[in-house]
Amino acid sequence: MPQNRRFLLQRRPDGEPVPEDFELITEDTPELADGQFLIRNHYASLDPAMRGWMDDADSYMPPIPLGAPVRASTIGVVEESRADGFEKGQWVMGLHALEDYSVSQAGGFTQPIDPGMVPEVTNFLSLFGAVGMTAYFGLFDVCEPKAGETVLVTGAAGAVGSIVGQLAKITGCKVIGIAGGPEKCAKLTERYGYDVAIDYRGKDQAALESEIAAAAPNGVDVIFENVGGIILDAGLENIAMKGRIGLCGLISEYNTDPVGARNLWRLIVKRAKIEGLLVADYVERFGEGAATMGEWASAGKLVVDEHIDDGLENAYEAFMRLFAGSNQGKMILKIA
Amino acid sequence: MPQNRRFLLQRRPDGEPVPEDFELITEDTPELADGQFLIRNHYASLDPAMRGWMDDADSYMPPIPLGAPVRASTIGVVEESRADGFEKGQWVMGLHALEDYSVSQAGGFTQPIDPGMVPEVTNFLSLFGAVGMTAYFGLFDVCEPKAGETVLVTGAAGAVGSIVGQLAKITGCKVIGIAGGPEKCAKLTERYGYDVAIDYRGKDQAALESEIAAAAPNGVDVIFENVGGIILDAGLENIAMKGRIGLCGLISEYNTDPVGARNLWRLIVKRAKIEGLLVADYVERFGEGAATMGEWASAGKLVVDEHIDDGLENAYEAFMRLFAGSNQGKMILKIA
Repeated sequence: MPQNRRFLLQRRPDGEPVPEDFELITEDTPELADGQFLIRNHYASLDPAMRGWMDDADSYMPPIPLGAPVRASTIGVVEESRADGFEKGQWVMGLHALEDYSVSQAGGFTQPIDPGMVPEVTNFLSLFGAVGMTAYFGLFDVCEPKAGETVLVTGAAGAVGSIVGQLAKITGCKVIGIAGGPEKCAKLTERYGYDVAIDYRGKDQAALESEIAAAAPNGVDVIFENVGGIILDAGLENIAMKGRIGLCGLISEYNTDPVGARNLWRLIVKRAKIEGLLVADYVERFGEGAATMGEWASAGKLVVDEHIDDGLENAYEAFMRLFAGSNQGKMILKIA
Repeated sequence: MPQNRRFLLQRRPDGEPVPEDFELITEDTPELADGQFLIRNHYASLDPAMRGWMDDADSYMPPIPLGAPVRASTIGVVEESRADGFEKGQWVMGLHALEDYSVSQAGGFTQPIDPGMVPEVTNFLSLFGAVGMTAYFGLFDVCEPKAGETVLVTGAAGAVGSIVGQLAKITGCKVIGIAGGPEKCAKLTERYGYDVAIDYRGKDQAALESEIAAAAPNGVDVIFENVGGIILDAGLENIAMKGRIGLCGLISEYNTDPVGARNLWRLIVKRAKIEGLLVADYVERFGEGAATMGEWASAGKLVVDEHIDDGLENAYEAFMRLFAGSNQGKMILKIA
């Protein structure tokens, strides 16, 4: 019976997670019951949303129980099976945990995947996973950009943002991205095709407002919001009439007391809206998103970056990159 | 030539307006040019939105110029006319100012009205004016309540809120209102037909959250938001899946630095939206709103309260009632 390293949540983080909130333990893999199968996890997706699951809050998913491994989307290979339809050696993807081996069952959310369909199997955690689908459905279904409109993306160099920017560009929009630091900003324009990159570092809200206004003299029709705080407020200051803000995340507020959105009155002045979006609502349409984005990717219109850190023992440091912004693409942890 | 008392904006208020920001002067009424007419103002509408017009901010309307009379909707009688279609003695309504006499012109926003159509001519500033139309189109067009849903109205005893609550009730919704003080709360349930009244006075956000949750165990499907601050955050905490928040006003924030909305993450969790609304978008459909609400009012299903203070010399005190919440109905200033 193989040994299973598991990265447990031992304490609910108070603000920014610290190493002591977690513990890496080793235990035996359990015996499988009928209908279950054992997955050897190869890669795990590290996402800002996981921070929310660590809190004891009413959300779209129950909190991660204390003492349980940290919930994460993973891809891996079936190691042993007592379930019909899941044979040893089959690649699968699903919502599992940061651990070497996960137990799952038929009829759950674990789905077979075919690595032959994609350039790299990890693409199932980026372009063809929650990240890509969030960008696709969040932009097209919630924000409804039209050719000629101006789109502002915050967290623009991040996993979701970098795809959103490219999708908006394919749509024929003028695309402005906000990111942290000259390196990421260069990437926005040089690699992801953004028209304008704004570096938020060291700038207050007024400075950000001015830079957005300079890039979008007629206002921004769409904001794809990943950040919140003064970055959202600066965007609100520049929202155009009937503007649409797709609220995907508020990463600046996950580890601190939120400063809050103080510019909501702009929604009244401009008859604009903020709408929350969650990829879970679009599961049944993932095929549509995958087909369309897959075609664009094959045609070289869509590039996707992945930042892969190696080793379950580095789970904490890898996860914290998301908040420091030190990842260069979709954050993935290689487990095996 | 009659003397014209004019209530001027002399200084832009810093936070809460003080008497020194204004000045009541007397001057001659001007000579009319061709196409102009002179209106003897009888009643003026006092609205929270006027506070925004006093700031030097980019909004849906230019700021009131310093030294100009405070802009307001008024109803009055044509005193003298050099414009076709506006005869002496005709009642009119339009966006004029807090002054005895206003000059207007044909082809502008001043419209003839027929006092015989309504129980009281002041109803053109309440149920059949911007207030009533804001309630009607804001609720039905932006919030789209359905029978059986739960609707939360903040500023529920106010001019707009008291109408919104009744419209939601007519729609077949469960209606919860938040207002300040036992007197207003009694009015919510006894006069406006609210199912539940919540008194916000002396309560923190957590207490408000609990009271809303107790009244709406399955969450609130619609929020008609007039207040902002912790009241909006408490509502966000209780928003139901796919909830709709019509943002009509943020009166708690007009005279202070906004505390900001710190619960926007609830929009993501519940895939809900906040949408700004402004009555100006519905001018062409006012007839529809007036006909429907007029019928309900005649049938006794819709009551409207007006709080009429007397005298241009009391303009400041009357206006400030809106922020103290000491008005009992739509705030109107009698000028003559």
